[in-house]
Amino acid sequence: MTPVVQQHEDTIAAVATPPGEGALGIIRLSGPRAFGIANRVFRGKDLAKQASHTLHYGEIMDDGEVVDEVLASVFIAPHSYTGEHSVEFSCHGSPYILQRILRLLIDAGARPARPGEFTKRAFLNGRMDLAQAEAVADLIASDNRASHMAAMNQMRGGFSNRIKTLRDKLVHFASLIELELDFAEEDVEFAKRDELKGLVTEIQQVVAGLIESFELGNVIKQGVPTVIAGKPNTGKSTLLNRLLNEEKAIVSSIPGTTRDTIEDEIHIEGIRFRFIDTAGIREARDQIEAIGIQRTHDKMKAASVIVYLFDLTRETEKDIRKEINKLDKLGIPYIKTANKTDLAGPELRARLQQTWPDMVFISAKLEQNLESLKQKLLEIIHLKDFKTGDVIVTNARHYHSLVQTRAALINVMEGLETGISNDFLALDLRDALTHLGEITGEITTEDLLDNIFRNFCIGK
Amino acid sequence: MTPVVQQHEDTIAAVATPPGEGALGIIRLSGPRAFGIANRVFRGKDLAKQASHTLHYGEIMDDGEVVDEVLASVFIAPHSYTGEHSVEFSCHGSPYILQRILRLLIDAGARPARPGEFTKRAFLNGRMDLAQAEAVADLIASDNRASHMAAMNQMRGGFSNRIKTLRDKLVHFASLIELELDFAEEDVEFAKRDELKGLVTEIQQVVAGLIESFELGNVIKQGVPTVIAGKPNTGKSTLLNRLLNEEKAIVSSIPGTTRDTIEDEIHIEGIRFRFIDTAGIREARDQIEAIGIQRTHDKMKAASVIVYLFDLTRETEKDIRKEINKLDKLGIPYIKTANKTDLAGPELRARLQQTWPDMVFISAKLEQNLESLKQKLLEIIHLKDFKTGDVIVTNARHYHSLVQTRAALINVMEGLETGISNDFLALDLRDALTHLGEITGEITTEDLLDNIFRNFCIGK
Repeated sequence: MTPVVQQHEDTIAAVATPPGEGALGIIRLSGPRAFGIANRVFRGKDLAKQASHTLHYGEIMDDGEVVDEVLASVFIAPHSYTGEHSVEFSCHGSPYILQRILRLLIDAGARPARPGEFTKRAFLNGRMDLAQAEAVADLIASDNRASHMAAMNQMRGGFSNRIKTLRDKLVHFASLIELELDFAEEDVEFAKRDELKGLVTEIQQVVAGLIESFELGNVIKQGVPTVIAGKPNTGKSTLLNRLLNEEKAIVSSIPGTTRDTIEDEIHIEGIRFRFIDTAGIREARDQIEAIGIQRTHDKMKAASVIVYLFDLTRETEKDIRKEINKLDKLGIPYIKTANKTDLAGPELRARLQQTWPDMVFISAKLEQNLESLKQKLLEIIHLKDFKTGDVIVTNARHYHSLVQTRAALINVMEGLETGISNDFLALDLRDALTHLGEITGEITTEDLLDNIFRNFCIGK
Repeated sequence: MTPVVQQHEDTIAAVATPPGEGALGIIRLSGPRAFGIANRVFRGKDLAKQASHTLHYGEIMDDGEVVDEVLASVFIAPHSYTGEHSVEFSCHGSPYILQRILRLLIDAGARPARPGEFTKRAFLNGRMDLAQAEAVADLIASDNRASHMAAMNQMRGGFSNRIKTLRDKLVHFASLIELELDFAEEDVEFAKRDELKGLVTEIQQVVAGLIESFELGNVIKQGVPTVIAGKPNTGKSTLLNRLLNEEKAIVSSIPGTTRDTIEDEIHIEGIRFRFIDTAGIREARDQIEAIGIQRTHDKMKAASVIVYLFDLTRETEKDIRKEINKLDKLGIPYIKTANKTDLAGPELRARLQQTWPDMVFISAKLEQNLESLKQKLLEIIHLKDFKTGDVIVTNARHYHSLVQTRAALINVMEGLETGISNDFLALDLRDALTHLGEITGEITTEDLLDNIFRNFCIGK
């Protein structure tokens, strides 16, 4: 089963650098006519006659007028990202100039690239499989160590190799079963049923593991929706600001870079915790008057974790017990967080600690013990044991295919148990093979590809 | 007079692409240790041993972990932008990855580059003069054909050559006068006074022309502050929206690109017209109740051009005459614009046309005759005759130096007329030479350089 065959007669062009002004901007050109088209706008050496992986100074010309002084990178097929002839122009990072050069390339015969079209071509030309291509977008979107590692691992084939190994084993058995069908009258058994059972069990375990990893993968990719809750004036706003300011300090300590908007999120050991409805908290509105109020209830339900604050200067053990009873009924993991410990008496703290050993005692204002709170956040979502190089499913499409693979394998197993006819067994095996093949793109459709690459940025 | 000498022992690094996600990101490294530092983070070929202007695939490593797969461009001094050894890493356009690679380079011995430091080094290494270096920032900021042409012309030395030619001529005479000083007792005259007078007159004319061009240059760079005014409900808001929507349509027709924010401005033949206080217009507030009101007066005064609307369905010739009398007293160019012509009778229009032949008749709602209005805008600021390749002063610093040159030349001329002593003449000539030299950077100070490059983006 080979990838969908498609002709790329077009030569495509796009701006590959982020929008806005910068020191440099890049325009990418890829396709059979890349050099010819580039030559029509480039005043300098004949780019068609240059060695691959070389850089050439020249000028982009528009009807005798110099649009920019650029460096042209030459890549000769198949030694390029797309596997096609490619040229990259590095010009001044002016959106106006980039647009003009792009326009000139289009006038010279290029077509504006669709989102992800360079990567799609890389896939169709066998430069990477589909899961690797999808990881490219994830890699660009990655904004912390965990999502970066998961995407990088996937892009470098870690995930694909795992899937392909499983699939190859199944293909072997499936072909034996198909062979048996050819010799149906002779009642031969090429595929040892016990061995097949053993293999399917093994594969089921791996698939189950991958499916399970998606919970973590999803958290890595999307972040953990987190709510800070508690009665009015328990210090929710102070805690949030302390956590976020610390984060800002970390980010801005990276030289030469600024992040325009740091959303209301923090990263703990590479995991992103997104704070929900922090606007409400910041305005210090009476956010959680009573847990019973439906609105608040809904908000809390959208959270994967609740950091629930008690104010030790005003709440008694009885107050706290009442709130905890209500929180338990929510069924969402929460962290009992006693705030303002610096102002509270040691007896109350001792008593609370005895009653609820998992309670965290902090002073948001004085930034005391926030580290413990962060560790509790990690613990509560069971992310303690995430390691570099772990194969983790982060992509909902892969997850879906794995779930379908699992269903097909259950059918295979049941067929083997009940001694189903070879026709049906072969069908179920093919079903499993199809779903596994969808992940790496051995089985694909134009629609699926369009869907996947639509979400890429233009120029990638 | 050579540029300020400065040691660039440091190797500097910066992200050179705009902030945000994109297909590609570039990190720049420049300085004597560029290859050694790059090699410490790059797994692939030894970059120090590669030919200049070649590209090499490899991986950026962080403690055994792959941070990204990149292409490294190698530039060997002096054949680089800065004139120093340089490496550019082209990686995936993820801000997270860019920051990590930058951090690794810094850990490996690079220093974060200051704004414009690459271009500053290019200047200090004699790759370009100061006016050319300044044009780099203008070029990146250019967002229309006129500002682009002016910046490109300046970057490519058109402006500098003009200044240098003038200065060289003066230097010749100045040296002759200085020579006369050496032979003061002998009362010789190496510098023919008549010729010097002729030269100074010639230079004065050129300088005057350049000074005059700054009015246009400033408009090209900053845009023309424009106000749409008129009594309530004359259609100010409709006109503004029609003009801006047309602009948006033009911009968004450029494939593969979007401009996030189109401010309240339009481009007519490369000239930007910025609409002032359009918020007020958009809200259709009673903006211009009476021209006499001070606030409105001030607002109008901030404009270079006023598009003043009359409502033909409600205003009589007498009303209009009254307003025109007040407008004339403002002393700001304005365009008499009769709106809602589609709803007005032809007699009124004929009468008005006879009385005020320069009146423009439009229907903002039906988008009728807006082209005439645009042409009037161009006419009114005398920009009809702007041509490619014209040497135009767009930089306030250059303008300032030219004005000082002019003053010095007046002194020279007066000295020549009154037969001033050679000491003073030489002083005035040196003064003129200094101010001309400041423009191209033959005369400069560290403070001046800091001031200039501070406004560059990082990575340029």
